[in-house]
Amino acid sequence: MKEVKSLPPSGGLSRAAREALDGTLGDRVSYAEAIRSQHGSSETHFAPSLPDAVVFAESTEDVIFVVRLCAAHDIKLTAFGAGTSIEGQALPVAGGISLDMSRMNRVLAVNAEDFDVTVEAGVTRVALNNHLRDQGLFFPVDPGADATIGGMASTRASGTNAVRYGTMREAVLSLRVVTADGRDIRTARRARKSAAGYDLTRLFVGAEGTLGIITEVTLRLHPIPDIIASAVCGFETLDGAARTVIEAIQLGVPLARAELLDDAQMRAVNRWSTLDYPEKTTLFLEFHGSQAAVDEQVSMVGEIAAANGGGAFAWSSQAEERTRLWKARHEAYYATLGLRPGSVGWATDVCVPIGRLADCISQTKRDLDAASVPATICGHVGDGNFHVVFALDPDAPAEWEEVEAINTRLVARALSMDGTCTGEHGIGLGKQEALVDELGEAVDVMYQIKRALDPRGMFNPGKIFKSN
Amino acid sequence: MKEVKSLPPSGGLSRAAREALDGTLGDRVSYAEAIRSQHGSSETHFAPSLPDAVVFAESTEDVIFVVRLCAAHDIKLTAFGAGTSIEGQALPVAGGISLDMSRMNRVLAVNAEDFDVTVEAGVTRVALNNHLRDQGLFFPVDPGADATIGGMASTRASGTNAVRYGTMREAVLSLRVVTADGRDIRTARRARKSAAGYDLTRLFVGAEGTLGIITEVTLRLHPIPDIIASAVCGFETLDGAARTVIEAIQLGVPLARAELLDDAQMRAVNRWSTLDYPEKTTLFLEFHGSQAAVDEQVSMVGEIAAANGGGAFAWSSQAEERTRLWKARHEAYYATLGLRPGSVGWATDVCVPIGRLADCISQTKRDLDAASVPATICGHVGDGNFHVVFALDPDAPAEWEEVEAINTRLVARALSMDGTCTGEHGIGLGKQEALVDELGEAVDVMYQIKRALDPRGMFNPGKIFKSN
Repeated sequence: MKEVKSLPPSGGLSRAAREALDGTLGDRVSYAEAIRSQHGSSETHFAPSLPDAVVFAESTEDVIFVVRLCAAHDIKLTAFGAGTSIEGQALPVAGGISLDMSRMNRVLAVNAEDFDVTVEAGVTRVALNNHLRDQGLFFPVDPGADATIGGMASTRASGTNAVRYGTMREAVLSLRVVTADGRDIRTARRARKSAAGYDLTRLFVGAEGTLGIITEVTLRLHPIPDIIASAVCGFETLDGAARTVIEAIQLGVPLARAELLDDAQMRAVNRWSTLDYPEKTTLFLEFHGSQAAVDEQVSMVGEIAAANGGGAFAWSSQAEERTRLWKARHEAYYATLGLRPGSVGWATDVCVPIGRLADCISQTKRDLDAASVPATICGHVGDGNFHVVFALDPDAPAEWEEVEAINTRLVARALSMDGTCTGEHGIGLGKQEALVDELGEAVDVMYQIKRALDPRGMFNPGKIFKSN
Repeated sequence: MKEVKSLPPSGGLSRAAREALDGTLGDRVSYAEAIRSQHGSSETHFAPSLPDAVVFAESTEDVIFVVRLCAAHDIKLTAFGAGTSIEGQALPVAGGISLDMSRMNRVLAVNAEDFDVTVEAGVTRVALNNHLRDQGLFFPVDPGADATIGGMASTRASGTNAVRYGTMREAVLSLRVVTADGRDIRTARRARKSAAGYDLTRLFVGAEGTLGIITEVTLRLHPIPDIIASAVCGFETLDGAARTVIEAIQLGVPLARAELLDDAQMRAVNRWSTLDYPEKTTLFLEFHGSQAAVDEQVSMVGEIAAANGGGAFAWSSQAEERTRLWKARHEAYYATLGLRPGSVGWATDVCVPIGRLADCISQTKRDLDAASVPATICGHVGDGNFHVVFALDPDAPAEWEEVEAINTRLVARALSMDGTCTGEHGIGLGKQEALVDELGEAVDVMYQIKRALDPRGMFNPGKIFKSN
């Protein structure tokens, strides 16, 4: 497993701090090894790092109490949602308290006529959509994992629907945040747009919990479309698949999802989900709208695909089939690990201007074909964003070095195309040097903000910044 | 005219500062009264406030030079684009240098396949769209005035197309910014989405020039739609007009523009633009898409309008007619002033959750009907955003007090509906107390950021913050 940072080990909590925690929180605080271990592990390739205690917040008041206590006792504080982040964002690498938000799981207000909802940070996206379904509304951002809304806001999550509906950057209308000095602020009102001062909402979205603790989130919702039609289409070439999506966008087709899976990913998916798709570069597409609109979109994309070496569309217009199709796509990560039992997953992502995507994926594919570690590619091709997942032998250091080198080349390739080192996974522990390569002195400006809002470095130490 | 702030008067520039400016910039610096006066006036109701000098930047290097000189000589620095901001954003209320960006007007790179463009900050939106037209692309954000892109980014501009295409918050991919310490940073790469660190792009968008000087902007573009169809439709009631738009959005109709003008505004528009629309609450609508998509949208909205007391649609599908229609809408401000020759305009705006919009406009309308000052309402009803324009007698202090009180009630009404004190005009000089009413301690967090990035208060003093 990968040790990315070596921060000074925590000395544990003082007796006074423990007494204050216990006195106020009772059984909402735990020091049990099993609980600490669960909050000190991640889904990907980072080494575990245990907190000294785990607090299960049940209200914003609990969060304020913990923040003030941490400030008073110089304790580090790392928020924890569902633990599904990819770059180690929730690992308490300097010990201290892991603040588990999962009990703050109430939907506070659905404003159907305003197309918005306010939730506590621990509500998960699946729970939210179950809650909303009866009202004809849905929350589109879908990173695959059943993450919490607070975690998705903090990592600026994105996913398969972003090409049509945007990412958490567009979806969040307002946040309730507890700051380092224990203030309880709301970053905006519920209006869809505002020109009232600095955009604090967008500052906390994607800050990975390093600037404050998000306790409530107001989200923009969308009407459930009349018709949802999904299709799978195999291509002769990777370039043909990517070009199909770009041309569709150029023609103004409002694709709802456009996912590209390479041949290796399709092999993994077929095996993992017991499917029998052709094992070549494949697009998973989805169309939303009225019947007439969807019919027109499908017809246009069908023609474009055929002209780019695409095969026939395999359609899923029933909800059940669609669910099966997207479940297969969402389990791509586990499908890749399934290629090699006992392996550890290293998931990386980059995002480039869409005109460069086919080229970026092709070059990456050549790099992966030459590698000794099994690896798959899948991507949100309408955004220019794609992932590589490696299935690593945890006990083969040479493999880890090899993957590190491939990842470094991947980031350099994306940057050379004026892309970003991460489209949706974030910086966390894994992309700190890449961030500096990408944005140079702008990272110093970010750090000026970090120091201004969290001068003692209490929130999520060790993340985003090399010097943090 | 309204004196909002009383900041210490500028002592003028020192001899050393003038020598440094003249030596490096030559005729790119001016101390002429006429030039200073032009840069010390605004389009709306704020009193003039002249800078000590005006610098016409021709490059980012010029901007870096001026920022460093201002830092070294403790000179205040206020950027100036086209001077079309509404809340006095470009007024140098503490003197110093007005940094005119209008000569930085080059389109640097059109990346047609990536749907983006990079421009210098002084390019105007009309010039940009003229440049793009041959490539089948357009930049949708349209606040009416032919503002500069840098100014539009700084004020988080919005306008008639925002319901479909978003505001400058969504349109800006990346900025080149000169910071207070003279660093020349780029806030992001050209990828459509990124999770790489804090969202500095969104922080500078809407900061009204108080955190740095924007010198280049990379914008997201859209394909020019196949069909653009505009229509005008009069309504029996204001509520019916607002409800038509809300119901269309609920049904997922992707309206490209949805503008509401009240009866007073229609009277002003008819008179100013020599038109003969019925003088009742009217929607100006626009639909974008393929022929089939537009036909379907038009049919749905037609039915909804009829059910809500709307009359027949008057169509403009030819470019020339459409231009005339939207020119009339865009000149609404001047049309209102035209109701009262010699009057001064006070334009305000609020934005509320869309379910509250009809109620908010109706209450406001009652307030205006009881007022002694001519006033009109028009709004971006799909966003919940509307404007009130007052035509004031510059020599009647009682009118100014009356309008101040109406505006205060309007803001309080919007806030009581969980809306914002400004949807698109910004804070500038006019909404500083409203901002605190709206966001409370969150404004202190904004000010922490201001102090961190501009500790000497060099950039655009007197704006956004009461204490600035």
